[in-house]
Amino acid sequence: MAGVKAMAETVSIAVGLVGPGAVGRALLEQLRVETPSLLKKYRIDLQVQGILNSSQVLLGREGHPINLETYGDQLLNSSADASLGVLTQHLRSSSLPHKVIIDCTASTYVPQFYRRWMEQGMHIVTPNKKLNSGPLAEYLAVKQLQRVGKAHYMYEGTVGAGLPVMSTLKTLLDTGDEVQRIEGIFSGTLSYIFNELSPPQGKTFSQVVWGARRRGYTEPDPREDLSGMDVTRKVINLARECGNKIELSAVDTESLVPEPLKHSPSPQEFMDGLHQYDSIMEARVKEAEEHGEVLRYVGSYDVESGVCQVLLRRFPKSHPFASLTGTENCISFTTLRYSNPPLIVRGPGAGPAVTAAGVFGDLIALARYLGAPS
Amino acid sequence: MAGVKAMAETVSIAVGLVGPGAVGRALLEQLRVETPSLLKKYRIDLQVQGILNSSQVLLGREGHPINLETYGDQLLNSSADASLGVLTQHLRSSSLPHKVIIDCTASTYVPQFYRRWMEQGMHIVTPNKKLNSGPLAEYLAVKQLQRVGKAHYMYEGTVGAGLPVMSTLKTLLDTGDEVQRIEGIFSGTLSYIFNELSPPQGKTFSQVVWGARRRGYTEPDPREDLSGMDVTRKVINLARECGNKIELSAVDTESLVPEPLKHSPSPQEFMDGLHQYDSIMEARVKEAEEHGEVLRYVGSYDVESGVCQVLLRRFPKSHPFASLTGTENCISFTTLRYSNPPLIVRGPGAGPAVTAAGVFGDLIALARYLGAPS
Ligand SMILES: NC(=O)c1ccc[n+]([C@@H]2O[C@H](COP(=O)([O-])OP(=O)(O)OC[C@H]3O[C@@H](n4cnc5c(N)ncnc54)[C@H](OP(=O)(O)O)[C@@H]3O)[C@@H](O)[C@H]2O)c1
Ligand SMILES: NC(=O)c1ccc[n+]([C@@H]2O[C@H](COP(=O)([O-])OP(=O)(O)OC[C@H]3O[C@@H](n4cnc5c(N)ncnc54)[C@H](OP(=O)(O)O)[C@@H]3O)[C@@H](O)[C@H]2O)c1
Repeated sequence: MAGVKAMAETVSIAVGLVGPGAVGRALLEQLRVETPSLLKKYRIDLQVQGILNSSQVLLGREGHPINLETYGDQLLNSSADASLGVLTQHLRSSSLPHKVIIDCTASTYVPQFYRRWMEQGMHIVTPNKKLNSGPLAEYLAVKQLQRVGKAHYMYEGTVGAGLPVMSTLKTLLDTGDEVQRIEGIFSGTLSYIFNELSPPQGKTFSQVVWGARRRGYTEPDPREDLSGMDVTRKVINLARECGNKIELSAVDTESLVPEPLKHSPSPQEFMDGLHQYDSIMEARVKEAEEHGEVLRYVGSYDVESGVCQVLLRRFPKSHPFASLTGTENCISFTTLRYSNPPLIVRGPGAGPAVTAAGVFGDLIALARYLGAPS
Repeated sequence: MAGVKAMAETVSIAVGLVGPGAVGRALLEQLRVETPSLLKKYRIDLQVQGILNSSQVLLGREGHPINLETYGDQLLNSSADASLGVLTQHLRSSSLPHKVIIDCTASTYVPQFYRRWMEQGMHIVTPNKKLNSGPLAEYLAVKQLQRVGKAHYMYEGTVGAGLPVMSTLKTLLDTGDEVQRIEGIFSGTLSYIFNELSPPQGKTFSQVVWGARRRGYTEPDPREDLSGMDVTRKVINLARECGNKIELSAVDTESLVPEPLKHSPSPQEFMDGLHQYDSIMEARVKEAEEHGEVLRYVGSYDVESGVCQVLLRRFPKSHPFASLTGTENCISFTTLRYSNPPLIVRGPGAGPAVTAAGVFGDLIALARYLGAPS
């Protein structure tokens, strides 16, 4: 049998990583530790043959993948021309049968190459949301290449980091379940802020945002989190997976950045001004409390109406969203088979290690698609 | 590229179903509805070529898979020799490149053939827990065949039905996370019973068991649920997946069947006698309540100690297990990357449709392992 024969051979994949930042470095560390046992257990042979950041590139040699103990220094000292072209040319020239590019940037530039790479038979794995939430035509073109079997395109890490969110949705859809509603707390930062803001903590909004920033939970400029754009991108990603041809601009997103502070010239000035708006949030918290409810910043996609929303909403204290702690994410799928109660996935949904694990899980699934045993 | 070429072709799989019971029939119905779109979207070509129950067998013909609209009547009227041998011989003689046997029985007999089938290159997909929780040597032999790439062996449906439990655990392990503890409410029946027993409902234990039985949530003999054996099998399955070489007999399982009723000759006599023991459970519920806690029937596997337990335990009302409703399952993974809070999957974890969807999801994953696009 063809399948059985293929499965018995080692599956060798040349890996090119774009973006050795927080997530990329965590992934390289996981690869360093796990590569030997993946080879031994499953004959999955992952060879990192290229690492590219915005100014440097490090390339492996035929039969000599990059040393994952020392790549950091080597990358710093590399003098090769650094470009996506150099990286992909190097991967293409590899004699390994399979090639994958892992995009661990947050860039909109890198995804512009996915199509070309897939047309050349290179697989893509990424936690970068920019393609899936970017211009619809480009997204559909990439999905079409995946559909016709040109190459695999995998992005579990884009929503909920390492939590099984995209794979769960895909299985529901593929097995013919009828997805009715997806709703979730998709931002670790905003989860933390409203978990802390719920009584009895009794802190003010600005105090909580300061605390989140101090703990490193926010972007350097917290407005990037508070604007809701990151959550909006995740909701678009989920809605499109369900077949909805929606654009980012069609989402009803409530920004938590007070209008007058949108144009504060620096993050520091924004933070300094935030306390002036505490009373607005205080009133909303109090109003919720009077109804026995709490505030949660929730993204949702309703299939029948096609509406995507990202709003600060009230939930009864018995609701699964009300009992979260810290930076937990919580994603709920209401479907024909899972209605009342829905299927829920919950847990830490941000941070380099779990995001890298989401990417790594895709890479292993890819190796199985290419013939490795399970 | 080899991978790309393989992906572009239709993946045809001859399917043999053993056990068209509640789950098997639901699966055939899902297959009937989804097969055309799987072929169109992903070039996954699933052809049901055999259906076997304990006394009848229905076989397809080359190029003419079984008609999933009418198989019920045809099976009833079939006169062929019904045996596993007839089914497997028919699959083996098929010219389709791939073959899978789906075991939807609860039998210990059928799993005795997994090894032989896998050695012949036939894949196995099943929601039947009996192999994974049966004699260790047989389990290890099957896993070894899977490991060396003889055939795929897939069993998402064995724990949590269609919830992503086994796949989540497998990804955690494969990506090098360190699983520390798995804990869960694994029985829809026992979830229902203790959700109903928690104040303020105020019903007695026997009343709640009667109610569960009336709703069809229990086995015909509720002692099968109350003994905890089904939960114990699921815990063993999870512990073995983590590499623990444990046997069923090593689990510390608390049976909820009152000792004197263990030998009641009929389910009816058991049910009639149950109310005599209500005061024991009432005292435990009250004791929990006095500590602000609730009772939950929980299976757990602690990796460091290697201990598997299936016990009725107390949980604070803020614990995720405390807020379940109906027959919900809830499985929590505490790992190095997901500690405090853990990764949690929750939702309906029993019933023909969701269990069949768990099997169907495996079947689609199998098709991708064999080259279909994602
Ligand atoms: N961190 C999380 O918790 C999390 C969770 C889910 C998803 N994600 C996603 O994961 C991705 C990575 O996040 P991160 O936190 O690791 O970001 P990061 O620490 O800022 O790292 C970004 C990396 O991308 C590189 N880069 C940027 N533009 C590039 C270009 N045009 N060509 C080559 N390299 C380029 C940067 O190189 P330089 O250093 O040279 O600029 C850096 O190595 C993002 O898409 C993010 O949304 C992150
Ligand atoms: N139902 C659920 O919610 C659920 C959830 C998770 C997992 N599961 C698992 O799914 C499996 C099926 O459950 P179910 O509820 O569908 O059971 P079921 O309704 O009792 O069906 C069992 C089927 O197996 C057949 N069968 C039994 N022994 C056989 C043998 N030796 N050879 C051929 N056929 C045989 C029976 O045929 P006859 O009718 O001719 O006897 C029947 O078609 C079980 O392993 C169960 O533990 C079920």
